[in-house]
Amino acid sequence: MAKGNKLSLDKVYQASFTLKEVARKTDLIYSPHFSGKNQVYLKTENLQVTGSFKLRGAYYKISTLSDEEKKAGIVACSAGNHAQGVSLAAERMGIKATICMPDGAPISKVQATKSYGADVELVKGTYDDAHAFAAKLCEERNATFIHPFDDPDVIAGQGTIGLEILEQLDNVDAIVVPIGGGGLVSGVAYTAKKLKPGIKIYGVQAKEAASMADSLKQDEQITLSTVKTFADGIAVKHPGDLTFELIKKYVDEVVTVTEDEIAAAILALIEKQKLIAEGAGAVAVAAVMFDKIPIEGKNVVCLVSGGNIDVNILSRVITRGLVTSGRNASLQIALEDKPGQLVDVSSIIASCGANVIGVHYGHSDANTAVTSCVLTLEIETRDFEQIEEIRKTLSDRGFKLV
Amino acid sequence: MAKGNKLSLDKVYQASFTLKEVARKTDLIYSPHFSGKNQVYLKTENLQVTGSFKLRGAYYKISTLSDEEKKAGIVACSAGNHAQGVSLAAERMGIKATICMPDGAPISKVQATKSYGADVELVKGTYDDAHAFAAKLCEERNATFIHPFDDPDVIAGQGTIGLEILEQLDNVDAIVVPIGGGGLVSGVAYTAKKLKPGIKIYGVQAKEAASMADSLKQDEQITLSTVKTFADGIAVKHPGDLTFELIKKYVDEVVTVTEDEIAAAILALIEKQKLIAEGAGAVAVAAVMFDKIPIEGKNVVCLVSGGNIDVNILSRVITRGLVTSGRNASLQIALEDKPGQLVDVSSIIASCGANVIGVHYGHSDANTAVTSCVLTLEIETRDFEQIEEIRKTLSDRGFKLV
Repeated sequence: MAKGNKLSLDKVYQASFTLKEVARKTDLIYSPHFSGKNQVYLKTENLQVTGSFKLRGAYYKISTLSDEEKKAGIVACSAGNHAQGVSLAAERMGIKATICMPDGAPISKVQATKSYGADVELVKGTYDDAHAFAAKLCEERNATFIHPFDDPDVIAGQGTIGLEILEQLDNVDAIVVPIGGGGLVSGVAYTAKKLKPGIKIYGVQAKEAASMADSLKQDEQITLSTVKTFADGIAVKHPGDLTFELIKKYVDEVVTVTEDEIAAAILALIEKQKLIAEGAGAVAVAAVMFDKIPIEGKNVVCLVSGGNIDVNILSRVITRGLVTSGRNASLQIALEDKPGQLVDVSSIIASCGANVIGVHYGHSDANTAVTSCVLTLEIETRDFEQIEEIRKTLSDRGFKLV
Repeated sequence: MAKGNKLSLDKVYQASFTLKEVARKTDLIYSPHFSGKNQVYLKTENLQVTGSFKLRGAYYKISTLSDEEKKAGIVACSAGNHAQGVSLAAERMGIKATICMPDGAPISKVQATKSYGADVELVKGTYDDAHAFAAKLCEERNATFIHPFDDPDVIAGQGTIGLEILEQLDNVDAIVVPIGGGGLVSGVAYTAKKLKPGIKIYGVQAKEAASMADSLKQDEQITLSTVKTFADGIAVKHPGDLTFELIKKYVDEVVTVTEDEIAAAILALIEKQKLIAEGAGAVAVAAVMFDKIPIEGKNVVCLVSGGNIDVNILSRVITRGLVTSGRNASLQIALEDKPGQLVDVSSIIASCGANVIGVHYGHSDANTAVTSCVLTLEIETRDFEQIEEIRKTLSDRGFKLV
């Protein structure tokens, strides 16, 4: 792993200048919805070119290579946003890039990476197998390995987001940043604290992949045996060496959020802000929504780091979010097998102001009497109160809810 | 309907100054995905405060009222974005606002409108009934009716988007704008053509609600008996008087898009741009995606006018978009009622690289033999080619697709 020289503010400014030719200065959007006891702003790196901040670090890192290194090409290992960032960056600089991915990587990610210009090598097995293959490729070709986070140049590239936030919001008090390997938060924290020492930086991990949070608690780098979050962009088993040190020094606190909290944040970003965030991109917002951070009365920036979520998964997140927020419910009703029952039930639901969107009407199974049926209704509702009202009305009219 | 004085560039600049205190200067985002033979940029009014451009016209209009008029309050009739825009604008200026809506309006729209501060009157019946009630309220209270589009001040407010686009993209050649009543396109076209006469302005309507397109063809304002598009923000039966005249004078061409084209545009905006657009907000993008407009080699701005889509509808749009783009398919297979069949079918699908996400296994109905079952599988796929490959492989192995 090429470490290059040390991180410095100088390097971050250099990166900022270099990135002008490729990266967008993404908008900072005030969010009345997420504000309450505080003022919340969203730094929209999901609207960055390639759909995530990763382009910044990758592009700057590659730009620092010597002509000889550029000629030998680069190799990376990633099934996610880093792959897309490296692919586009290399293509823009006319450099041959090979991205190694485990062969189980989602079709959409493989296609997106290829579309930006890189070769993709699908390696049989896990991420670790793909990583070993990438190392072998580097040796064979004398190519440069572009680490996704544990590299001062990559970190400096991500640090440019810190510069932009300080410029876009003079009186910012705190920045909340997702953590996977820790490259993003290291860059943002280093930059922001060097320029404005009083600022607070909070890191957020998925509870199901809390390698950095756990490492900080134990004051040594631990390795998780499994990570099972749908926020795949921050599913990292082991913190970086450099990022671990930088986070200990510059990050005030690292908190965690659950899978349901992440899903709720994604849904809220869609409904209230019209923005698509991937799981990893929504954890900072989730931390603020669910009061994980002491930010009362403060001007807070949540970094929405990326938006590359598979639409099939997005569809499931929306469905789940609707259920967990009481706007979609499933009712099971045991009906006598006689005419008119469906009419009665439908009328009751309509009179309560809810909307039936799915019906399944099945004959008896092992748990019901032979003469009865089970009606399963999927309904659109306003809130839990309305669901309760419907259940009560049905019971009062003699229907048996299963 | 209060017409005030005439539209002028002066008025648009006045609106622009007034709006600084409430509206966002929304970002203009270059879209590599929608670009091809042209350069496509998105003006993101879905990221405007209240989730649509409507705030601009409403706020500016209300700001022009006299103190006496402000004291008497305002009334509007809308179940959509205009309602939210008026509600927030009135609240900011400390004016009493009453919004009349038909009682069938979606819960989410009623709640959003109330949340910004206005009173909501749910009126039994259709939009026309709500409109009649609003007129009565205005008379009783001596209140001012805020028309959603047919008003020079409202149009001037929407015109500020034209100013921003010209400032954000020096060499813009064309702007593509959704049309409902025509207030947005009138303002943008008037402003852009006055400042840059060579610019082309294209309007887009839903084919199922093409009142303006049809009126232009017949050179007189026609009234549609029904409008049945899911792009409810532009479901308008009759063009405005003022907007009809302005569009005839300043808009180069009005085209239409189908419901499926709108759904495909919404899905593409989600996947490629990480933006949520409502149906009305996506028609300009749909027109460009499906080559409805002569813009080869041009710098084109698509106005994404709003993002207030009900998440239940969004969920259905995503599902439909996945099916129409070959990334989700349903297979029905007639199986003999013997063990091991499901294993065989599942193995074939897995070997083709697709993912099973839903299974329904039912006994014979009127169309199948008594000894057979029908297996319905919902699968995630890459494209139509892969679906065809799966169907062919299943047939070759002797399975009968229904």
